Amino acid sequence: MSTSKRKTYHHGDLRQALLTAADRLLDEGGTGAVSLREAARRAGVSAPAAYRHFADKESLLAALAAQGFDEFAAALGKPAAGRDSLAAMGQAYVAFAVERPGRFRLMFGPAVSDRDRYPDLKAAVERASIGFRGATKKPREMQHGIAMLRAWSMIHGLSQLIIDGMLPGHDARELALAVTTAAK
Amino acid sequence: MSTSKRKTYHHGDLRQALLTAADRLLDEGGTGAVSLREAARRAGVSAPAAYRHFADKESLLAALAAQGFDEFAAALGKPAAGRDSLAAMGQAYVAFAVERPGRFRLMFGPAVSDRDRYPDLKAAVERASIGFRGATKKPREMQHGIAMLRAWSMIHGLSQLIIDGMLPGHDARELALAVTTAAK
Repeated sequence: MSTSKRKTYHHGDLRQALLTAADRLLDEGGTGAVSLREAARRAGVSAPAAYRHFADKESLLAALAAQGFDEFAAALGKPAAGRDSLAAMGQAYVAFAVERPGRFRLMFGPAVSDRDRYPDLKAAVERASIGFRGATKKPREMQHGIAMLRAWSMIHGLSQLIIDGMLPGHDARELALAVTTAAK
Repeated sequence: MSTSKRKTYHHGDLRQALLTAADRLLDEGGTGAVSLREAARRAGVSAPAAYRHFADKESLLAALAAQGFDEFAAALGKPAAGRDSLAAMGQAYVAFAVERPGRFRLMFGPAVSDRDRYPDLKAAVERASIGFRGATKKPREMQHGIAMLRAWSMIHGLSQLIIDGMLPGHDARELALAVTTAAK
């Protein structure tokens, strides 16, 4: 194979180019469609060049998931704080899931079997969790913990049920509004 | 290849034998590990014999998912009706998910892309939904619908968060108890 069509990247740029290519593969066919080889091909580099950045497919998926959690934290952080901050965050949560179900499934699903093996992913999950916790007010120890877990479970479950087609014929935004408004 | 080791089945029994084999593959490695060819091998028949029962892998997964929803309806139906029937059902829901995460992910996940293509699956989903709806009391039209959706979302989300390892260090039964009890 000729290498004449191969691109050259500055240090670090190739890593992001591979992530961007893998992100598109994720949208096209889920985690099963993501491969280091195909990401390399789309980024215009050889497979060995890609393997210098990611040891294997799971490392690539873990980096993608970490990027997803950072985008998630940013999306959840947008709603203005205030009386309805938890409802607004819930709606942002559902919107994030619906926007790119493949990304959401990668982040929360079993594609990365042990998140603890990937410090960047673990840290990104923690950052996103802190953002979510911040939206709940007046911490009162255990009761607060359960209330937060209930809110998180509810909005996470609604997101999953929507992207998994269990609530056909309903608008995602309207469902999120109804569920988070009634939750008060 | 010799066919001397091939088993013979009565009509209908092979279908169930293939489903049983596929169910084990599901537990071993998720939907990605399920194949008609491997299910046939484990059931002791040729691949063409298996294809007489299932057109392709998705048909096999759809039949497995339908079986899962029937087991789900049976598991949810066990708790005695009464004041705490919704809490008991929520706890049974989480227990079902935790018992076999691969089955739960197949049932609700994207492995079967369009449930409407499989009438048996669609009917099984509907039967399980009726069981769930039956646990909520005093229908009051729209408000009741939202209350049910909130309860379903909450318990489904909790199940997902647990099997996806987002709540490490916690016991699934205790989480289910805390969330469903606080929900009153």
